[in-house]
Amino acid sequence: MKITILGTGAVGQTIAARLFELGHEVIMGTRDPKETQKRESPNQITGKSFAEWYQDHSGIKLLPFKAASTFTDLVINATNGAATLDILSEIGASNLEGKILLDLANPLDFSKGFPPSLFVCNTDSLGEQVQKKLPKTKVVKGLNTMNAYIMMHPHKITGDHHLFLSGNDQEAKNSIIKLLLEIGWKNKNIIDLGDISTARATEMLLPVWLRLYKTLGHTNFNFHIQGA
Amino acid sequence: MKITILGTGAVGQTIAARLFELGHEVIMGTRDPKETQKRESPNQITGKSFAEWYQDHSGIKLLPFKAASTFTDLVINATNGAATLDILSEIGASNLEGKILLDLANPLDFSKGFPPSLFVCNTDSLGEQVQKKLPKTKVVKGLNTMNAYIMMHPHKITGDHHLFLSGNDQEAKNSIIKLLLEIGWKNKNIIDLGDISTARATEMLLPVWLRLYKTLGHTNFNFHIQGA
Repeated sequence: MKITILGTGAVGQTIAARLFELGHEVIMGTRDPKETQKRESPNQITGKSFAEWYQDHSGIKLLPFKAASTFTDLVINATNGAATLDILSEIGASNLEGKILLDLANPLDFSKGFPPSLFVCNTDSLGEQVQKKLPKTKVVKGLNTMNAYIMMHPHKITGDHHLFLSGNDQEAKNSIIKLLLEIGWKNKNIIDLGDISTARATEMLLPVWLRLYKTLGHTNFNFHIQGA
Repeated sequence: MKITILGTGAVGQTIAARLFELGHEVIMGTRDPKETQKRESPNQITGKSFAEWYQDHSGIKLLPFKAASTFTDLVINATNGAATLDILSEIGASNLEGKILLDLANPLDFSKGFPPSLFVCNTDSLGEQVQKKLPKTKVVKGLNTMNAYIMMHPHKITGDHHLFLSGNDQEAKNSIIKLLLEIGWKNKNIIDLGDISTARATEMLLPVWLRLYKTLGHTNFNFHIQGA
């Protein structure tokens, strides 16, 4: 499968590496590939610079956002939630028509420090705003309720734990489920909550996720619905 | 222990019955005890009228909100979230001074049908509003993230599942933990998230709880933090 990943941060890198390892053709999208490749400051989460990481993952292509999104089957939005809508404008709705977009960004507002609040919630969500911006794209919200390593290596956590999906197009959700099974998710641990408006519910898990991170001192945990 | 429960709905009844069974002196608070005792319409959740329930639980006292809150060690707020602040005004902050108040109400706004949105969230919470209204009361938010039967009978769900606490007063949280252990909660399944501002996070679990209820078709589930 040809998969485009928007965003070159720790989340984008973790997803790109895993999907490439599984045999997919992976193209990463960034604003300015030359600038991104020269980045030598270490990533806060991985401790490595993008330049170092990219040397170790030479099979992965790096292109500008728009070019990266053409000739691809699936686009994964791993950009910062606050930048997501601008980046989608840069790509243009027509370039994403008919494609599946897996949105795993969260609408975090860090303007007042930690913990961030959400810049949209309750009666709307980033997932819905993305779908509204791209009316002819099949937007699926998912994987946004855990850290990127767990997204891609669910066995890292012992025992069952859940992943939630939201989206208006059932076939698109089925394609995502197929990819998730390949990654190592168990079918019984994937909960389809319904249409894209249910993204409000999963994005609103972030505040408790952030508080748990602070309380537990690590992010190697995930939500499990006991009794589901 | 002398325990006051504000609210006579399904939640109040479930809590009152269990705490009475455990040997506590239980006083329920309502607006108009005579009117409440005459209620013959069946409760939507229990299928029984309050009159019927009350006949089977004759050891439990029923008093007006204010009288019920005097001479008691612990007040449990099991009223409708939308009515909570008005009921606390009726009781008066001075009548709750120095007491522990366990707040398990959620700020659900049903004005636009199901699923309800939250009438306060993200940068404030009902728990914080209650603490602000009662500055000399030790407010603890907790038990608001599951159905009332599970609150009082945690073994109803097989396996471990969690309960979150928020509050500014550590001694008050310790008293609540003592009561929770008596009810049957395991210490390892109680997560103290921090001060009362963390109530934002647990109240924001309601949207996904409500969507899970719709998806699963039952409420016999609870959040479990796998890897905690």
